Amino acid sequence: MDARTEGRRIMNELMGDGYVEKKDANENAFNEAINSYSAEVCFGRVWARDGIDRKTRSMLNLAMLTALNRPAQLAHHVEGALNNGCTVEEIQEILLQAAVYCGLPAAGEAFKVTENVLRTHGHLD
Amino acid sequence: MDARTEGRRIMNELMGDGYVEKKDANENAFNEAINSYSAEVCFGRVWARDGIDRKTRSMLNLAMLTALNRPAQLAHHVEGALNNGCTVEEIQEILLQAAVYCGLPAAGEAFKVTENVLRTHGHLD
Amino acid sequence: MDARTEGRRIMNELMGDGYVEKKDANENAFNEAINSYSAEVCFGRVWARDGIDRKTRSMLNLAMLTALNRPAQLAHHVEGALNNGCTVEEIQEILLQAAVYCGLPAAGEAFKVTENVLRTHGHLD
Amino acid sequence: MDARTEGRRIMNELMGDGYVEKKDANENAFNEAINSYSAEVCFGRVWARDGIDRKTRSMLNLAMLTALNRPAQLAHHVEGALNNGCTVEEIQEILLQAAVYCGLPAAGEAFKVTENVLRTHGHLD
Amino acid sequence: MDARTEGRRIMNELMGDGYVEKKDANENAFNEAINSYSAEVCFGRVWARDGIDRKTRSMLNLAMLTALNRPAQLAHHVEGALNNGCTVEEIQEILLQAAVYCGLPAAGEAFKVTENVLRTHGHLD
Amino acid sequence: MDARTEGRRIMNELMGDGYVEKKDANENAFNEAINSYSAEVCFGRVWARDGIDRKTRSMLNLAMLTALNRPAQLAHHVEGALNNGCTVEEIQEILLQAAVYCGLPAAGEAFKVTENVLRTHGHLD
Repeated sequence: MDARTEGRRIMNELMGDGYVEKKDANENAFNEAINSYSAEVCFGRVWARDGIDRKTRSMLNLAMLTALNRPAQLAHHVEGALNNGCTVEEIQEILLQAAVYCGLPAAGEAFKVTENVLRTHGHLD
Repeated sequence: MDARTEGRRIMNELMGDGYVEKKDANENAFNEAINSYSAEVCFGRVWARDGIDRKTRSMLNLAMLTALNRPAQLAHHVEGALNNGCTVEEIQEILLQAAVYCGLPAAGEAFKVTENVLRTHGHLD
Repeated sequence: MDARTEGRRIMNELMGDGYVEKKDANENAFNEAINSYSAEVCFGRVWARDGIDRKTRSMLNLAMLTALNRPAQLAHHVEGALNNGCTVEEIQEILLQAAVYCGLPAAGEAFKVTENVLRTHGHLD
Repeated sequence: MDARTEGRRIMNELMGDGYVEKKDANENAFNEAINSYSAEVCFGRVWARDGIDRKTRSMLNLAMLTALNRPAQLAHHVEGALNNGCTVEEIQEILLQAAVYCGLPAAGEAFKVTENVLRTHGHLD
Repeated sequence: MDARTEGRRIMNELMGDGYVEKKDANENAFNEAINSYSAEVCFGRVWARDGIDRKTRSMLNLAMLTALNRPAQLAHHVEGALNNGCTVEEIQEILLQAAVYCGLPAAGEAFKVTENVLRTHGHLD
Repeated sequence: MDARTEGRRIMNELMGDGYVEKKDANENAFNEAINSYSAEVCFGRVWARDGIDRKTRSMLNLAMLTALNRPAQLAHHVEGALNNGCTVEEIQEILLQAAVYCGLPAAGEAFKVTENVLRTHGHLD
C-alpha cells in the first residue's frame, strides 16, 4: 500500500467515519497541498510506524497540542484519543501533567476544549 | 506521607540515585522556592497520581519538552524515561512524531540532545 | 487556613464576587482536577505569598499572558488588574512594552482583548 | 516625510483603501499607543526601508505569523500579500514550507485562515 | 533630546557603566540596524515613557523573558532589575509566579540563569 | 529520481560540499529516523517543489527560525541563504523585520548568531 492510501486508512480509523470524506469534499486546488502532506507524511509516514501503539500516539498528541497552543486540533485529537481507547481519566491526567510543564493557562484552555468534546460525545453529564 | 516527602521519593526513583542529593547540596535561599515547588507540586502532586503510569508520564514529557524548546530539561527526562522502562526505539518514535507536530527544527534538536544522553548511558555505540 | 480555602478567598478578591461561585456551579468530575490545581497551587501557594503585592502580580500576568498568547485568560486578568488597582494608563504601558519584547502581533491582539474588557467595565467610552 | 506619515502611506498601500481610515475611526485614548507604534515603528521605520521589496516582506510575514500562531494578523497580511503581487501558488508554497518547520498544526490552521481570505477576495472557487 | 540619545542614556542607567560603550565598540555595518532599533525604539520610545516606573518595567521584563525562553537577555535584565532597585526576594517571587503561568521548565531555567547573575554580583553566597 | 536522492542533492547544494557526507558519517540507528525524514520530507518533498525559488525559501527560513527560537538551525540556514544568493544586506533586513513581529529579544539573538556565521565566512570584517 502506498503512503497516501495507508495514511487515509489510518486517519479514517483515528477520526472515525466521515472525517476523510468531509476533507475530500472540501478539497480544492489550494488546500490540496496540505491535505496530501497530512495524509502522506503525518499519517502514512509517521502514524503508520510500529514502535509505539496508536493509543500512546494519541496521548502524546494531546500533550503536544496543549504545549503548542492549538485548541482546534486538540479537539480533533481528543476524539481520536477516545477512538484509540483513551479513558476520560487518562485524558484528565495528561492535561493535568501539562499544567505543570506548559503552565496553567495552557492546561486551563485544554480542559475547556476537551470538556466540550467529551460532552458532545456523551462522556460527561 | 506529605507531598514534599512523596515528591522527593518519586524524583529519586525517576532521576536515579544522587539527583535529589545533588539538588539539596546546591540549594540556597534563592532556588529553595523553585526546588520546593518542583518537589511538592510537580512530583508530589502530579507525578504521584495514579491514572497513567510512570512510563507514560515520561513519554508525555519528552513530547512536551520538545514542543516547549527546553533541551536541558529534555536531557534529564530522557534519563528518567530510560529509568521508567522506555526503550530507545520508543524514544525515537516519540521524537519522530514530534517532527510532524512541532516541526523539524524542534525534533532535530531533540534528537541531538537525546543522542548525547543515550551515548553517555551506553545505549548507543 | 489550608491552601485551597486561602486560594479561593484570593481568587474571589481578584476576580470579583461571583467568579468562584460560577466555577463551582460548572464543576464536574473532569474539570475538578484543574480547578483544584488552580485554587491550591496558583492562588493558594503562589498568589498567597508576600514579597510582591497583588497589583504587581496582576501586572506581571498581563505581560506573561501576552507573551504566552492566551487572550481568554488575559481578559480575566485585565479584570483582576483593575480590581487590584491598576489604572488604564498602566495597563496601556504594560502592553506597549510587550510590543517591543513579544512583537507587535502579540501586543496588537492584547490591546484588542483589553479594549473590550475596559469598555465592558466603563473604563473607555 | 516623517515616519508616521510615511508609515500610514505604506499601510494604506499594503492593506488597501479604507484600512487606515477604519483604524482612525476606531482610535481612542487607549489603543492610540499601539496604533502610533504600528504606524511609526512597524511601517514608518521597517517597511519603509529598501533592501528587500514589499512582496518579499509580505512573504516573510506570512511565514512569521504562521510560526507565531497569530491567525487574525495572518488574515490581514494575506490580503497585503495579494496586494503586493503574491500569487495564490506562492502563498501555498510558503504555508507548505511552514508545515515542515513550524509543524503541521501551525500550517493546517494557516491554510484554513488563508483559504477564507482567498475565497472572500475571489481567488478560490 | 532625540530618541536615540535618550535611549542610550536610559540603557546606560539600566545596564550600568560600560554596557553602551561595549556595544559601540562591537558595532559594525551589520548589527548597526538592530543596535539603532534597540536604542531608539526599545529604550528611546518605550522605556523613556512615564506611566510605570523603571523598577516595574524591569520586573515585567523578567516575566516576559522567562515566558519567551530568552535566557541570555534574561541575564542582562536581571542586572538591570538589580540596578533599578529590585530585591533578590522580589526576583524570586516573579520567577516563582512564572512557574505557574509559563510552566516549571521555563521557571527552572530562569532560576538557574538568575542564580548565576546573583552570585556574580555578590547577592548570593 | 526518488525523494530521498533528490532531497540529498538539494541539501548538498544548499549547505555546501561536505554537509551531507558529515551527516552520513554521524548516522546511527537512532538518528537515522530524523535524517531520513529531513532528506525525504523537508528537502525531497518541500524544497524540491517549484513555485518559489530557493533564495526565497532561504529567506523564509531565516524568518521562521528566528520566530521559532532555533539559533543552531538558523546558523545553518544563514550559510544556506548565502549559498542561495542572499546578500548580507538582505539578511539584515529580514532580521530587522523579525524585530517588529517576533520581538527584540528574538531578533537580537538572531543578529548575534548570524554575525558569527558572516564573520566565519569572510562577509564581515
